[in-house]
Amino acid sequence: MKRVLVNGAMGKMGQEVVKTVVEETEDLLVGACDMKGIGENIMDLLGLKGDRVTIYGDLTEAIQKTNPDVIIDFTIPEVVMNNIKTGLSHKVHMIVGTTGITEVDLKEIKDLAEANNVNALIVPNFAIGAVLMMEFSREAARYFKDVEIIELHHNQKIDAPSGTSIKTAELINRNMNNCENNGINEIERIKGARGGNKNGVNIHSVRLPGLVAHQEVIFGGEGQTLTIRHDSYSRKSFMPGVKLALKKITDINGLVYGLEKIL
Amino acid sequence: MKRVLVNGAMGKMGQEVVKTVVEETEDLLVGACDMKGIGENIMDLLGLKGDRVTIYGDLTEAIQKTNPDVIIDFTIPEVVMNNIKTGLSHKVHMIVGTTGITEVDLKEIKDLAEANNVNALIVPNFAIGAVLMMEFSREAARYFKDVEIIELHHNQKIDAPSGTSIKTAELINRNMNNCENNGINEIERIKGARGGNKNGVNIHSVRLPGLVAHQEVIFGGEGQTLTIRHDSYSRKSFMPGVKLALKKITDINGLVYGLEKIL
Amino acid sequence: MKRVLVNGAMGKMGQEVVKTVVEETEDLLVGACDMKGIGENIMDLLGLKGDRVTIYGDLTEAIQKTNPDVIIDFTIPEVVMNNIKTGLSHKVHMIVGTTGITEVDLKEIKDLAEANNVNALIVPNFAIGAVLMMEFSREAARYFKDVEIIELHHNQKIDAPSGTSIKTAELINRNMNNCENNGINEIERIKGARGGNKNGVNIHSVRLPGLVAHQEVIFGGEGQTLTIRHDSYSRKSFMPGVKLALKKITDINGLVYGLEKIL
Amino acid sequence: MKRVLVNGAMGKMGQEVVKTVVEETEDLLVGACDMKGIGENIMDLLGLKGDRVTIYGDLTEAIQKTNPDVIIDFTIPEVVMNNIKTGLSHKVHMIVGTTGITEVDLKEIKDLAEANNVNALIVPNFAIGAVLMMEFSREAARYFKDVEIIELHHNQKIDAPSGTSIKTAELINRNMNNCENNGINEIERIKGARGGNKNGVNIHSVRLPGLVAHQEVIFGGEGQTLTIRHDSYSRKSFMPGVKLALKKITDINGLVYGLEKIL
Repeated sequence: MKRVLVNGAMGKMGQEVVKTVVEETEDLLVGACDMKGIGENIMDLLGLKGDRVTIYGDLTEAIQKTNPDVIIDFTIPEVVMNNIKTGLSHKVHMIVGTTGITEVDLKEIKDLAEANNVNALIVPNFAIGAVLMMEFSREAARYFKDVEIIELHHNQKIDAPSGTSIKTAELINRNMNNCENNGINEIERIKGARGGNKNGVNIHSVRLPGLVAHQEVIFGGEGQTLTIRHDSYSRKSFMPGVKLALKKITDINGLVYGLEKIL
Repeated sequence: MKRVLVNGAMGKMGQEVVKTVVEETEDLLVGACDMKGIGENIMDLLGLKGDRVTIYGDLTEAIQKTNPDVIIDFTIPEVVMNNIKTGLSHKVHMIVGTTGITEVDLKEIKDLAEANNVNALIVPNFAIGAVLMMEFSREAARYFKDVEIIELHHNQKIDAPSGTSIKTAELINRNMNNCENNGINEIERIKGARGGNKNGVNIHSVRLPGLVAHQEVIFGGEGQTLTIRHDSYSRKSFMPGVKLALKKITDINGLVYGLEKIL
Repeated sequence: MKRVLVNGAMGKMGQEVVKTVVEETEDLLVGACDMKGIGENIMDLLGLKGDRVTIYGDLTEAIQKTNPDVIIDFTIPEVVMNNIKTGLSHKVHMIVGTTGITEVDLKEIKDLAEANNVNALIVPNFAIGAVLMMEFSREAARYFKDVEIIELHHNQKIDAPSGTSIKTAELINRNMNNCENNGINEIERIKGARGGNKNGVNIHSVRLPGLVAHQEVIFGGEGQTLTIRHDSYSRKSFMPGVKLALKKITDINGLVYGLEKIL
Repeated sequence: MKRVLVNGAMGKMGQEVVKTVVEETEDLLVGACDMKGIGENIMDLLGLKGDRVTIYGDLTEAIQKTNPDVIIDFTIPEVVMNNIKTGLSHKVHMIVGTTGITEVDLKEIKDLAEANNVNALIVPNFAIGAVLMMEFSREAARYFKDVEIIELHHNQKIDAPSGTSIKTAELINRNMNNCENNGINEIERIKGARGGNKNGVNIHSVRLPGLVAHQEVIFGGEGQTLTIRHDSYSRKSFMPGVKLALKKITDINGLVYGLEKIL
């Protein structure tokens, strides 16, 4: 049983994480931190049963008052590095789902984790299915020379292509010898029809109301195609990954990047 | 029973049409015309059983020698109009699967058909499934405000997007009030990711070895999507359409454009 | 502008309908009826802005106090006929999304609607995409001789196959000459592998966590397949259908069954 | 460069293999064996360029006359074991795509290969995409507790479910702790709707004209699904696997079963 503090607990992901820790793990929610609802009992706010868990507005105070083993951070890029430093320097393990962490940040986190003898698990995508889709795509790239990616999201997503599709293209590119060109001079009668090209992989971004978050990686070979598709229908898809992270956080050693490392 | 002459009989589509007429209709193959195999018996060449059918190199000669009721033309854009004029002026019904016929041509064909009191059926796509996909897309466009098209072909197809996807977008556009803009300023981080835009409909063209000819039309509305997909696996997919055309050619009146009109 | 009363207003569908009427139509929510929240202001309960709308526990009282033009009923099979009778006999148009209405009921509803000179619109499925899927399947059945249905739902749905898949099979069957047998004696090495057969159409029911409500109708012909798929991701998918029903309820004449009739 | 003999060279798969060896590898086709075309030059029969390769009717004679390093066998279950024994005892490596080899056979092949110091590669499915689909499914089964398989084939395939789907279910079952029951008492309103159950995995077999050979493995978890799909459009899909086998046959040690072992 680990003592868990959720940072960003009143955000959409944070609330889901709080519920998951309370209802679906053997661990104990001891603290919550957020700018909203300070001083209130998050158990009441979310309709959960169990002892009072007060929302603190300051992470350091929350750590001192609740003495957690692990902090799960779903905040915003602007503050995440400060949160990680605060957690690690108080010798608390960090599980981080917040985006915006750079290569440079990772180096700093690694050093800080090792210096304090605690662990940091940085996870850009907590959906196990999405992580497997990327892993399988990387693996399949060794056996196919041609691949394209279609990613489909709701039309409120304003940027294209998605971060996951770009990361998938990078992973594929490392394993695929020559996906730059099929030797055919294509004619694009309508500009953009052939999609955007990332590392030699064409990416097509569909945006439609009704859709949630979906990605399809299609490998083509003579007479056959292999398709790996992930459909995310709700925020709940991230919870199994969060539970896995919580289970493994004490077994890893220092910094670990990516859920695939602990699968 | 109709007397049928196939023009372009030794081409890939032509051979398939010859086999279909002989083996799967109650009509009679009386003539064949092609630049290849002139003077030979096409029944022998294609391993078919039945009376000799000689291949002629000249369409007028073929008509005079074989006295057909209907000509099925699968030749090339450069000669198709000449063929149609030849057929109609000899008072033979024309079924035309050759591409490259323009609006202006259609006017001329119409007049010539009426003047000679015969019919002309011009069919850009003989696959009934593809025609239904287009019809259903046109119909669905009345009830959805957002749609995108993904068309997937083998990587030997050098042009993109496909003619069928462009025609589908046109049909959708006529029925959809406002598909130009969803009011969101999109950010395309990699150029082309959002596809090519035709009449307000985004089209994405996938090209991979292994694929044959496929198209998916996805309509999105609040909380739902409706997808209409056609997969063409072989040239045989066009034969039911050819048989239908042969059955209906004497029932239509003058010029008819598109298989959907006789479904 | 119509005066609208929602019956079953505090149910999952009812709440969604209340929000839709208030926020997305030009009509006026004047009343709400439910066993829960009696006497409370439903606008407050659902966080909506606008004049007070009291929840009544009795439909007759609700009608007398609020004088609606239309009642939208999302209640339960056990009470829906009583509700319809109450509404029609008070000369209020009825839009009914509740399931469980039989052929016999329809006859009675028709007579009552006509006697009172008001309209009743009974809608088994309000998702426009699902209705179009069924309509297109019915239409496609005229051109293909082989079809199978795959329906996929979350694993909390205990019955199989789904009502929509059964209805689809019925619609297909009426238009398809001979879908009973493909002349092949199949060998089912594992019992059930070939699915359940309804009216000559094989239905396959997939049940998995993560899924919401999906159906795929696949028509097969020589060298091609045509697939019509509907994906429902949330209850919101029914709201465009509700809005359409509200718009058309005064234009129909007596009883109308099925959203497809007013599309 | 290896000297290759193709056994069953005039069969559908055999012809494809002969073409592939001649046109797409650096290896040398030295012999062909079949009951058809004995004494003829297979290069001529298949329209290939290169030195004469005579078709022999007897495998032993073919080996003695052509001195191959490797035999590729695509014959029939009734004779495959005899062929393997003949090849191995003549100290020729065997690549076997013929089906019908049992566990008992494998033991015998292993002993014979080792005794003769040559290798035997037995491959039930040469399509790399299908092999990857099975491998990825086996891997994904460690992270998901629910899965179903849909396999779709042309309606000339009389048995269901397919061998590949059964093998996939077996592989999944070994890695999935508890896929027997989701704790829900399902109600099957039409018998067979929920598919056939193999090792706790439901398999659904679709049979339609137009289809070729397709399989979809769908894993479901909270809020997400992961789908792995293989589409085989033609016999050519097996050739990359054959080429890989040819490349690796001298590097393995004794008996190897399954293409996945040499990927």
